Formats: sequence, structure tokens, C-alpha cells
Amino acid sequence: MKKISLLGSTGSIGTQTLDVIRDHPQAFSLVALSCGVNIELARNQIKEFKPKLVSVAKEEDAKNLQREFGKEVEFYYGDAGLVEVAKSSDADVVVTAITGSVGLLPTLAAIDAGKPVAIANKETLVTAGHLVMEAAQKKGVSLIPVDSEHSAIFQALNGEPHKAIDRLILTASGGSFRDKARHELQDVTVEQALSHPNWSMGAKITIDSATMMNKGLEVIEANWLFNTDYDHIDVVIHKESIIHSMVEFHDRSVIAQLGTPDMRVPIQYALTYPDRFARPEGERLNLAELGKLHFKDLDFERYRCMKFAYEAGKSGGTMPTVLNAANEVAVAKFLKGEITFLQIEDVIEQALHTHTRQANPSLEEILAVDQAVRARVMNN
Amino acid sequence: MKKISLLGSTGSIGTQTLDVIRDHPQAFSLVALSCGVNIELARNQIKEFKPKLVSVAKEEDAKNLQREFGKEVEFYYGDAGLVEVAKSSDADVVVTAITGSVGLLPTLAAIDAGKPVAIANKETLVTAGHLVMEAAQKKGVSLIPVDSEHSAIFQALNGEPHKAIDRLILTASGGSFRDKARHELQDVTVEQALSHPNWSMGAKITIDSATMMNKGLEVIEANWLFNTDYDHIDVVIHKESIIHSMVEFHDRSVIAQLGTPDMRVPIQYALTYPDRFARPEGERLNLAELGKLHFKDLDFERYRCMKFAYEAGKSGGTMPTVLNAANEVAVAKFLKGEITFLQIEDVIEQALHTHTRQANPSLEEILAVDQAVRARVMNN
Repeated sequence: MKKISLLGSTGSIGTQTLDVIRDHPQAFSLVALSCGVNIELARNQIKEFKPKLVSVAKEEDAKNLQREFGKEVEFYYGDAGLVEVAKSSDADVVVTAITGSVGLLPTLAAIDAGKPVAIANKETLVTAGHLVMEAAQKKGVSLIPVDSEHSAIFQALNGEPHKAIDRLILTASGGSFRDKARHELQDVTVEQALSHPNWSMGAKITIDSATMMNKGLEVIEANWLFNTDYDHIDVVIHKESIIHSMVEFHDRSVIAQLGTPDMRVPIQYALTYPDRFARPEGERLNLAELGKLHFKDLDFERYRCMKFAYEAGKSGGTMPTVLNAANEVAVAKFLKGEITFLQIEDVIEQALHTHTRQANPSLEEILAVDQAVRARVMNN
Repeated sequence: MKKISLLGSTGSIGTQTLDVIRDHPQAFSLVALSCGVNIELARNQIKEFKPKLVSVAKEEDAKNLQREFGKEVEFYYGDAGLVEVAKSSDADVVVTAITGSVGLLPTLAAIDAGKPVAIANKETLVTAGHLVMEAAQKKGVSLIPVDSEHSAIFQALNGEPHKAIDRLILTASGGSFRDKARHELQDVTVEQALSHPNWSMGAKITIDSATMMNKGLEVIEANWLFNTDYDHIDVVIHKESIIHSMVEFHDRSVIAQLGTPDMRVPIQYALTYPDRFARPEGERLNLAELGKLHFKDLDFERYRCMKFAYEAGKSGGTMPTVLNAANEVAVAKFLKGEITFLQIEDVIEQALHTHTRQANPSLEEILAVDQAVRARVMNN
């Protein structure tokens, strides 16, 4: 029985992680969860899965739930609660399914407690990849990717030696506006941006897909997870999202992982690796029915966020922290109707241009830069 | 230094195997070869690679070459010579790149001598799969696939447990006549049939591709190599031959191997497995440049040889032996202009219908059936 601590239980990856746990009651149990403010859903999850540790966003919610559930469950709240859920349960693996760089401290806490992390929170590796990888290496803790692209690469590698890798090829659906030219993006609405052609996901990642920043963050995440430099990470537009990503080896053989778009497949693989559990109810890939798969080159002028991400990644230091913080706030502002879609790019570009890069930043420096960039972008 | 014995050195796979050996002189050496009647090419190969054992088809050629090369090289000839080259050299691996069931005895001889076989001769497994697999298992000898489809599956499996396999998906280009309807095949010429859209291969396999018997033989070969029953082996038409084949696992994840059509990649992988050697001069896969990959279902009425192959494979016993023998002779007759393209199917169908299946045949029984079917088809 594998005991799981799940950070972000009410989000898209969180609820699908619970689907996987529900499908395999003999193999998995949930011992801890964290969520934000969706207390109604959290209450049902607690009743169904009976975790011993729960953290919510607000103190008031934690107190109410504690009264309701009594001694069977310990409740925590806020950032400290997240860290508690990450490190203090008797979990065998921590799934980080929360969104944003708020995932950084609990991820480091899980690693410090020697717990393997199934990592679905890409912002953590973007904002502080060197610290997370260093901590994981020091503790001998494995980081198993959950993102469909990174899971695809992880499955394609499956024990192949690092020296045999020539390049990683991430596929990108192109997001909600892939069929629009740049000049057509002036007046797009939040609602249009939230309608992703292939995947049903949370709001932040769906907007990130539309700006292609999601792929940019994934490129930086891949750089850290697979120890591959940016010149050996390519992105190809593949609108069907059937090939989830690929590895080209130095003998020119390419291994790809494919499937219908269903996040429960990579989530489950992260929990069962190196085994695979059957998913008989899962939809089979039927290539003949699809008929065609399409591919095209990525245009860095059409998708400026990709350019920012490669530049920030190559530059390193605090630049990816700035990229991520500016993007998180810009997306939030767009969702609230405070800026237009194309202004997301402008906000990020300005944040990167006005920042003075610090090399090899400490955790404190990263947190300070993250806060400073957020404050500046918020008030602009 | 890995020492290689190469059966069929002057054919398409043979010459490309020598390309691979030539590319890695520090890693590979050729210690033995066999060929047929292309003595001019064989002479150059002997001069370049300096094998110690050589077998040719004809006694006269062997004698002439022996005089020419003196004591440095031992020459053999005929079927016995093939067996000698397979078992008697100090090779670490035997590459079986000859065409047809003539590969059976030397393959068994190599296995009996404890030598791993890089198997590029599918007819051997089709005609006597149970005997070959049993011998390999008994001797603890590995059979490493060279065919691009089987190499793709082998690479996709890469240590995954057998129980996790749901199905094997072989891709088929559709061959020379893939854009023709059945009624358009009445008057096609040998020349048209020999013009394969993607791969440059020998005559036998190119005709087998046009009739789709090649894919049928591969299905039977996959059944043996990967211990997977016929209900879990599918074929999909994929005209670009970029995805070389796939494995669907029981969690619905599909792993595929892709690449530009270059047989040197799977040949080299068979020789370097579990490592990969760099092929910097090899052409990179560029999916964006290709733009589209196409897939469609296989029509068993359009490609009747596929139906024969599945039926013969499922039926087992001597039926695959009959399928293969009838096909080999029918293709030879078509190449000589003695029968039409569609008559290839008729010849095979008749041979299967008139044969009385023997279960679990011995080697002697298989050789007898093989000879009897050949004689009957030849004289019809």
C-alpha cells in the first residue's frame, strides 16, 4: 500500500489524482491533503478518503473543519499548513498538484523529509530549479514528473543512459488561439482564452497554454528534470496533443509516448513507476480513427512568451524566478479583466528587462525577488 | 570489440550492416560472412573486412576464391557452408540477413553454438518459430530483432514487463500499390511492384510489401519474438513509415519508435543493445518539415495476404510453413513473369487450402512440408 500526500486536492490534477487512488484501493491510500478555499469539495474528499492531515488556505476554515471532523483529522492552514502536509504525514510520496511558486517551500520540505515527489507543479522548478535539484540529489530523493510532456520524456527514457540523449522534443498543442494570427489577439476575451482545444485544465495553465508560456515553463522544467541544456530542448506544434513528447537519441532513433489526452495516465504512472497498472476503462488511442497528426515549427514571434522563457532559462540565476512571478501576476490580472491578453507578454517582458540578474541565488534571495516582482507587477 | 558473423553480406541489410561496422571500427569487426552469387561484391568485402570464414552459394566460386585469397580465409559453399559460417567462427553475434526460409538451419546452428542472433530473416521465425524460440530459450541465447518494426517494438519495450503489454501496433507503409484499388492491380508490372515509396530494399521484401505479405510475416514474427497472441497484434497503415511501430501498455500509454527510414539505425541498435552509439551523420527526424503523419485501418479484403497470415499464424502447426513456402515461390514466379501480381495471392490461398495441418511439427516435418509445398507450387 503506497501512502500518498496530495497538495492541491481540489484542482484539476488533484481531483484526477484522487480518481487514480479511487481506482486502485488495494494499492493506494490518501494520508494527507491540502487545498485552498473549495471547502465543500474538500469536505467530501476528507469523508471519502479519510486523510489524517489536512491543510486549507484560511484559519477560519481550518477551525470549522476541526470542529466538524474531531480528533480523526488534524487541520492546518496557510503556507505553514502546506509545509506540514508535505513533510509530516507518513506518506511514501508527495504529489505536488498546486499551482504557482507557492509550491516551492512544501516541495523543499517534502524533499528534506526524504519523501519522493510526484511533481505536477512546474513553477517550483522554474523559480528555483537549482535549489530543488540540489536538495533532491543531496537527500537521494526522486522527482517523478506528472506533467504529460515530462512524463512522456520520462517514459521514453525509461533507463536509457543520459549520454545517449541528443535532444528532447516537447509537443505543444498551440493553445486556445493557435488558429489566430498575432494581430487577431488584440481583443480576445478571458472566456475565449479559457477554452482549450484538447485538455480540460485549471484556469492558470489554460491561459499559460494560450500564451504558450506553459510550454516555456515546461522547457525550463525539462532542463532541470532531465539535466539537458536549452540548445537540446526543442518544441514542435502538434495540435492533436496525441504525441505527448519525444526523445531523440544520438543514434537518431526517436522514442515517443502517445495517448488520448487523459492526465490520469501520467498521474498513475508517477505513482506506479517503474510498474504500470491496468486502466481497462481508459480510452484507447485509435490512430486510424484520428487519420492525421499535424506538426509545425514554433514561431517565436507569434509566441513571444516562448522566447522569454528560453532567454530566462539560458540566462539562469534569478531570471526564471522573475519570468514566473511576473507571469503568475499577469495571468491573474488578465483573468480579472485588468489587462488584455497581449499585455500579459508586455508585463513579463518589462519585468525581465528591469530586473538585475543575480547569479546562483539562495532560497531567501529567490523568495525576495519573487515577492518584489509580484508587488511591482501588481501595482503597475 | 564485438566480432560479427554476417549471413547475406551482399544484400540490402548485409551491405548496410557493413556500413555500420565500417562506421565503428573500434567497436566491431567482421569475422565471417556468407553470400550467394554476387562474387564481385563479396571479393571487395573480403578485402576490406578480412573475415576468416566465407561461404558462397556455388562450389566453383568457393574454389576460385580459395585460390585467390590463400590461407588467410577459409571458404565454404552451399547450405552446409551457411551453417558453418553461422556456428564455427569466433563471432559474438550472428546477423542473419539472408532472405527466405533458407535462414532456418544456420539460425538454429548459431543458437546451438550459443551465439546471440541479430535476426533480420523473418521467414525463419515464420516457418519454424516454435523450434527457434525453444532452442533459444534452452540455450539462453538472445534473439535481437533487426526489422525496423520489431526493433521499434523492442526499443519501445526496453525492459517493460511482459504483463504490462496490451497490444503491439505494427505500422505498414502500404507498399508500392497503396494508392491503387484492388481492381487496378490486374495488370501491374514487376517494375511497378519493385518501386517502394519509402524504403530501398531487396526484391523479395519489396514484392512482399506490395502484397502486404511482408506485414503478415512480421505479425507472425512479432507473435514469436514478443510472446504476444494474434488478438493483441494490430496493424495500422501509416504511409510515411516514420512511426516504425508501437506498444500499447495496459495503462493505455503508447510508446512508439520513430525515425527517418534508415535501416542502419535498427541494425546498429541490434549490435549495440543495450547501448546506443552516436550516428552524427544520420538524418534527423524533422516532424515539422513532414507536416503530417497519416494513419488508416487495414482492409483485409484489399490486402488478402494479411488475412492469410493471421489465419495461418492463429492456426499454427505447419500452416505458417506453408504460407511462407508458397509465398516465396509465388514471388519468385511473379518476378520471372510467370504469374500476375494478384495470382501471388491465389497461389498462397490454394497452397493453404490443400494442406493438411500438422500440429507441433518437428524440424524434419517442417523441412519436408517446406519442400513439398515449393515443389507443388513451382510445378503448377
